[in-house]
Amino acid sequence: MTTESLLARRERFLGAGAPLFYSKPLHIVRGEGAYLFDADGKRYIDMYNNVPCVGHANPNVVEAMARQQGTLNVHSRYLHEGIVNFAERLTQLHGPTIESVVFSCSGTEANEVALRMARIATGKRGIVCSDGTYHGNSETVAKLSGLRRGQLPSPDVRSFPFPELYRPVVPNLAEADLVEAYLDRLRDAIVALETNGEGFAALIVCSIFANEGLPDVPQGFMARAAEIVRAAGGLVISDEVQSGYCRTGRWWGYEVTGFTPDIVVTGKPMGNGLPLSATAASKSLVDQFRAKTRYFNTFASSPLQAAVGMAVLDVIERDGLRENSAQVGAALKAALLERKPRCAAIGDVRGQGLFVGVEMVKDGASKVPDPSRAVDMANRLKDRGFLTSNAGVFGNVLKIRPPLVFSHSDAQQFLAAFDATLAEING
Amino acid sequence: MTTESLLARRERFLGAGAPLFYSKPLHIVRGEGAYLFDADGKRYIDMYNNVPCVGHANPNVVEAMARQQGTLNVHSRYLHEGIVNFAERLTQLHGPTIESVVFSCSGTEANEVALRMARIATGKRGIVCSDGTYHGNSETVAKLSGLRRGQLPSPDVRSFPFPELYRPVVPNLAEADLVEAYLDRLRDAIVALETNGEGFAALIVCSIFANEGLPDVPQGFMARAAEIVRAAGGLVISDEVQSGYCRTGRWWGYEVTGFTPDIVVTGKPMGNGLPLSATAASKSLVDQFRAKTRYFNTFASSPLQAAVGMAVLDVIERDGLRENSAQVGAALKAALLERKPRCAAIGDVRGQGLFVGVEMVKDGASKVPDPSRAVDMANRLKDRGFLTSNAGVFGNVLKIRPPLVFSHSDAQQFLAAFDATLAEING
Repeated sequence: MTTESLLARRERFLGAGAPLFYSKPLHIVRGEGAYLFDADGKRYIDMYNNVPCVGHANPNVVEAMARQQGTLNVHSRYLHEGIVNFAERLTQLHGPTIESVVFSCSGTEANEVALRMARIATGKRGIVCSDGTYHGNSETVAKLSGLRRGQLPSPDVRSFPFPELYRPVVPNLAEADLVEAYLDRLRDAIVALETNGEGFAALIVCSIFANEGLPDVPQGFMARAAEIVRAAGGLVISDEVQSGYCRTGRWWGYEVTGFTPDIVVTGKPMGNGLPLSATAASKSLVDQFRAKTRYFNTFASSPLQAAVGMAVLDVIERDGLRENSAQVGAALKAALLERKPRCAAIGDVRGQGLFVGVEMVKDGASKVPDPSRAVDMANRLKDRGFLTSNAGVFGNVLKIRPPLVFSHSDAQQFLAAFDATLAEING
Repeated sequence: MTTESLLARRERFLGAGAPLFYSKPLHIVRGEGAYLFDADGKRYIDMYNNVPCVGHANPNVVEAMARQQGTLNVHSRYLHEGIVNFAERLTQLHGPTIESVVFSCSGTEANEVALRMARIATGKRGIVCSDGTYHGNSETVAKLSGLRRGQLPSPDVRSFPFPELYRPVVPNLAEADLVEAYLDRLRDAIVALETNGEGFAALIVCSIFANEGLPDVPQGFMARAAEIVRAAGGLVISDEVQSGYCRTGRWWGYEVTGFTPDIVVTGKPMGNGLPLSATAASKSLVDQFRAKTRYFNTFASSPLQAAVGMAVLDVIERDGLRENSAQVGAALKAALLERKPRCAAIGDVRGQGLFVGVEMVKDGASKVPDPSRAVDMANRLKDRGFLTSNAGVFGNVLKIRPPLVFSHSDAQQFLAAFDATLAEING
């Protein structure tokens, strides 16, 4: 089938406007490790996909999936050891305050659980989030998105400007003073909820502000923010859907930005493509949530989720993928930073581990975002066999977020393509 | 591991109150076809699970799952033929007004999409549902649940008493007049939304009112209800998560109760345990939804969902499971109806295909619901090797809903156990 006829049939049966990447969409038919292959057999180095964290078509995951689906896959109102073992193992990846887990199928569902858990525990409804975030697509969770773009906040949601060094909310401050400036904005959001009758239940953040554009967060902001939240009677929710599972070279994004969450939400990489997500917290928080809601999720807490989730953790540990993420990511970031002084269009290079953002601007002095250049680069890099995308509140950050099996050699190949693409654009 | 220590670990790592079946919970380790096996090797005939519709551990599903996960499983912003083919095949299972599909991972997510689709198309927020329904666990969808139990409805939700012959909303009416009585209640709910400022967007029903207790619906009610909804500018959403996929001996529950929906929601059996759900409607409705929301779901519309979803449809058609559901279900229901005159505790026997409810009452004359008897029967049947549960707005309906591969021989064995259990109770 030609790409054109597939596009036409896709529009008919999935509706117009189902999102697609690239000006000429890719027809991908096969994956292996960090590579994807299109219908013509062309190989692409995948520098976008965080879901297949242990690699496309990972054989250990396939084997675990097939074995469990061929043995038992049933809902969670029977006892099953697998899901209990998996929950135990997940809690062990956090500090002692994370004790129990509620499983679900998507990041959206897990964030729904987190918000409900915080609201039940505090008896309040108000949620504070950043003004450039995305936490999911249900009606309740979607209220947290699009606030900087002028979406009117719901009465039970207030936002604060996300913390960053590159375009600070107040210019020309020392970093310590900038922290205070952001904390003031956070306090304002909390007070707004306390005074409008909703009350304050929780702060929810992606712990590395990924959708915001992977900012360098002023040192110490998140630890102080967590103190302020708790002093106001609220809970701290760390959305680790993008930032967790060794993405940053550490297990969790909250280790990078330096805080201890009350509730941790995980999703995308957990099942290497199997729908699997989790909301983890103290046993007390989970008990209160379960007592109030009797939460049940047909497909979640299943033997299949457990078996696949365990296999993913096994491969991460066996193959040292956290260390790989840290090492390859650091080398890649350093190499990109070297290129910054040579190219006025590179405003900034940020990130940790295998999650790097290259901020494209009109020029380094004005810092005016240049989203069309980021889009153009993603399209040209795709033509050269490297899959990236663009992100950030201005859409001008080239987003590099490969499977955790991405190697130094892959990075070298990418850097050559990156240089060639920049040269092409700069004419 | 003993059941006791597994229970204790489960409470610790999943939290207290994660729902479990039976007074002594079952520790299930293996499944095959219509059978489940516990840790001691005891076999149970599964008369509860609708998710593994083509049978536990179905080899065709396992093979399709492993093959696709071992080839490619990636998000939907690349082109992939599998998901387009699956969407096309799904639409072909409905009439011509169902043209396009939005995939998601759970029934909750699919109902979120349906409500949002209806609200976008109509520009109104108000949803009418039955007073005994359940459509999912997100905050928005959960507003539709628990209304008969006195949960205060949200301003954008109004309910009507679910239609039934057994305990009609107005006693002693001819069936045609009873239809009018229920339609009046539906009109009241619509008018309440039109007058409170929310406006009327949609009626959502499980097409066979499964959670309500599988009532016999007064003849012609649903067709008239759909007319009234459309005359009021609203859309009709059929939640086929429980009622679809040949459960009733027909492909869709709306064929049983006799109406044509504008939006169809499917879930549970679609992936035989793989998280997979869908919202299907006219292309115009789907286009409007996509234009307004740019809906994206990380794990949905994946090659894995497509491959597994196709395998399930293949097995249903190859093995004649719709016909099996119709024939075995009809025989089982007839046999249970035969028992009704002999047992005062059986108030009613209802259902279609392999979805049968036995309403347990104090006595047939008073019709006073007897939920403790239904629970007792489910526990005793479990001890005899047959897995059922209880359902309905009073919790007094013994719920029989086996995998579609359930056979005449399985039904015969169940009937013997059912008789023995009744004798024991009436002892």
